[in-house]
Amino acid sequence: MFNDVLSVISVGVAGLDEGAASGGAALTRLDWQPAGDATPELAWQLARLSGDRDDKECFGSVIDRANLEAVDRVIGAEPVWTDVALHARDVLPDLGRTLLHAGPPIGWERMCGPMRGAVIGAILYEGWASSPDRAEALARSGEVKFAPCHEHGAVGPMSGIISPSMPLVVVRNRTAGNFAYAPFMESGGPETLRFGAYSQKVLDGLRWIEQTVAPTLRAAVRGAPDGLSLKPIIAQALHMGDDVHNRNTAASLILLRWVACELAAGGLGRETVARVLELIRNDDMFFLSLSMAACKSTMDAAHGVPNSSVVTAMARNGVEVGIRVSGLGERWFTGPADIPKGLYLPGFSEADANPDIGDSAITETAGLGAFAMAAAPAMVQFVGGKPSDALRYSTEMKQISVARNPGFTLPALDFVAAPVGIDVRRVLDDGSRPVINTATAHREPGRGIIGAGIVRAPLACFTTALYALADAADKAPASHPGERA
Amino acid sequence: MFNDVLSVISVGVAGLDEGAASGGAALTRLDWQPAGDATPELAWQLARLSGDRDDKECFGSVIDRANLEAVDRVIGAEPVWTDVALHARDVLPDLGRTLLHAGPPIGWERMCGPMRGAVIGAILYEGWASSPDRAEALARSGEVKFAPCHEHGAVGPMSGIISPSMPLVVVRNRTAGNFAYAPFMESGGPETLRFGAYSQKVLDGLRWIEQTVAPTLRAAVRGAPDGLSLKPIIAQALHMGDDVHNRNTAASLILLRWVACELAAGGLGRETVARVLELIRNDDMFFLSLSMAACKSTMDAAHGVPNSSVVTAMARNGVEVGIRVSGLGERWFTGPADIPKGLYLPGFSEADANPDIGDSAITETAGLGAFAMAAAPAMVQFVGGKPSDALRYSTEMKQISVARNPGFTLPALDFVAAPVGIDVRRVLDDGSRPVINTATAHREPGRGIIGAGIVRAPLACFTTALYALADAADKAPASHPGERA
Repeated sequence: MFNDVLSVISVGVAGLDEGAASGGAALTRLDWQPAGDATPELAWQLARLSGDRDDKECFGSVIDRANLEAVDRVIGAEPVWTDVALHARDVLPDLGRTLLHAGPPIGWERMCGPMRGAVIGAILYEGWASSPDRAEALARSGEVKFAPCHEHGAVGPMSGIISPSMPLVVVRNRTAGNFAYAPFMESGGPETLRFGAYSQKVLDGLRWIEQTVAPTLRAAVRGAPDGLSLKPIIAQALHMGDDVHNRNTAASLILLRWVACELAAGGLGRETVARVLELIRNDDMFFLSLSMAACKSTMDAAHGVPNSSVVTAMARNGVEVGIRVSGLGERWFTGPADIPKGLYLPGFSEADANPDIGDSAITETAGLGAFAMAAAPAMVQFVGGKPSDALRYSTEMKQISVARNPGFTLPALDFVAAPVGIDVRRVLDDGSRPVINTATAHREPGRGIIGAGIVRAPLACFTTALYALADAADKAPASHPGERA
Repeated sequence: MFNDVLSVISVGVAGLDEGAASGGAALTRLDWQPAGDATPELAWQLARLSGDRDDKECFGSVIDRANLEAVDRVIGAEPVWTDVALHARDVLPDLGRTLLHAGPPIGWERMCGPMRGAVIGAILYEGWASSPDRAEALARSGEVKFAPCHEHGAVGPMSGIISPSMPLVVVRNRTAGNFAYAPFMESGGPETLRFGAYSQKVLDGLRWIEQTVAPTLRAAVRGAPDGLSLKPIIAQALHMGDDVHNRNTAASLILLRWVACELAAGGLGRETVARVLELIRNDDMFFLSLSMAACKSTMDAAHGVPNSSVVTAMARNGVEVGIRVSGLGERWFTGPADIPKGLYLPGFSEADANPDIGDSAITETAGLGAFAMAAAPAMVQFVGGKPSDALRYSTEMKQISVARNPGFTLPALDFVAAPVGIDVRRVLDDGSRPVINTATAHREPGRGIIGAGIVRAPLACFTTALYALADAADKAPASHPGERA
């Protein structure tokens, strides 16, 4: 009925234009959605913080300049595996009876199942209690303190529990001089502390890591005068099908090669060396500890650039996702954690799944993981989807990133460099939330891994961070950075 | 002028239709070219050998059935690294003063530069002569015999020279029971015997392989009760960016992991173990020996199926490319070798390049190498081209292949299986010659590798093979397989 009479441009909410379409009007649909949470206030703040005019009302170019400084620090980082701390307390002397955990701050009462399971396991491992029930009572009592790994220069996978006796890999960012720490990957099967299991077998495994694996690998890394430079390994692994978050097959092989050659002619007991090599041989994810610590040492160096809206941490405690932003100090900006969408081991489904958990999204924060997933087409066999999805994530994530990291190239995308430096503003402007690939934990303590999938960081983290950036802009000193000196 | 008057279908030679096109005729261009060498005789024979009618005049379905048998043997092969022969003569006792070489048969007088250089090196290594000049005189004299590796169950990379004292990897195809052999990859730099270099350093390297590397790796493989199964390694390497011809980075790492774990707790001297691990560590192509021997043991098992037109060997001596066909006995079908197109090391160009050389195209023959190149996008940094070319080769090669090998999947093509079983008829019908990726040797002896690139097997090999298939069909016994029993 509208033929040749009406031309309609349809913007935003789909469906409203159906009448026009069915009536035969010439219809052009624009792919547009309102910024962020669709409130006028957020749209206004976003515009104010994004414009490129240099005046009091417009803070955009100040943030842009700060962001370039932040990503320069990311791109320039040189993470090196320099040491193994035999016990966390050796490098984090103030721990006392504190357990570090993944994600933003959380107490026992709000903790999810797998994190509670890991807390019980860690208390048993430390000998602070002699049974799971007593461990739980102790955790509940307030006598044991909890703090985020991230606030102590550390990162932990899944529940991310680090207790004072656990050994840690030590990575130094040679450019900035800062250190980062991560626990070793536990060996063997679906039951591990990080997924919330605390059986005797799990505790024995942790003890073996403390008493055998850590000293052996310490001998290897201390034997190398300059340590082991991690960036070249990550770059090579990206050319060998890894994303160094949920696929570390190549990186773990490169690590094993290095360890084997370092220890082959050395003075350590041959049986011990053989068993440690066997451990790495059997765990294609062994490198994740080093990958996470490398990313943490990189992103900590990019933290604290005044006015920068670059995300320097994205971490999940199994209830909430929290981000930290370079220019916004130690504050966490949080939102509810989603359930990952993906593949499940036989017998499990989404109904069993715990919401997104773990500090390993530090890899995505540093431009690896799902941001570099175009490098890892075979990983979709683990997390679900198709190889084209992997390409799509890497392409989409450029839209919310400040730059590309020339050190990390993606062969399947014609060797384009991986996007890096999530900009809070771009996430809101684009409506494209950061993609994270992840293992999935059972929601009950003691059950372990049940699958893997894809998840996105919640919008609320970025919305609240934007208002904080706006507040900071309002409070900017009289010598407003936007007024040229 | 032809508008609405003339519709033209243009078939074959481009350009002849230009008059029609410029005159405005409705023009449909069909992408067609005559089969093979474009002679009517070949087209007739191809039609006779390709049709699916079961009668005396049409032999196609007989060949189809034979080809399915041949590729079943390829797909069912289980190559296992079972042993190391400390000297080639231990497993090939009839060698005497024979040197094996790459490709179809060739004598000294027609050999290319790098093969002559390798012959000189091998004669010096054997101690049959004491100087390069004397070695050359001996080679020219006819006292030293030459024979293709392929005719002795062996394959050699580049010049492919195997002399009686050289150690060989021994691979057994557990399904068919046959054995295949390949020399070890030499270490260190561009100068190696396989590229035609014969300096003292090259000879010392060969001696070290004979006296240290071979016994050490023999201890490793003999220590494993079932040897090392190669198919799972190749399948995994394809998911890690290898094509296992010119990229063996992942496969060599997996091999090193296995060797390191096998030898870690064993009784061999630690300094020796350390040096052998160092050798593998420094050579991302170390696995090529095992890849080639695995493919040779696979394709030899597919050889000798009566009436099959499946190619079971594709090999180059630096002057000619030769193929062997399952149903055509020991005969070679040859054509002139092309110069590879690709990348050159600084200071070199196509003018310095030797034509295509080496037995390593056994990997393409077995459905790996360029046929599986979609697995190895990063390899274009070595051979030239773009990652999309790698995808294209794997897709194109399906057109000339009988089947896909379910054991070898290609993530970047949505995990489709790699094409396998080159059919002589399809090559001619399609005009698509088999793609081979290859290193490029300097055309003069003693100079070594100068680059890498892409090359195709010459059409002449397939044309002459087709006529031989036609002859065989003509000579088929009275109980013609095409006449149903």
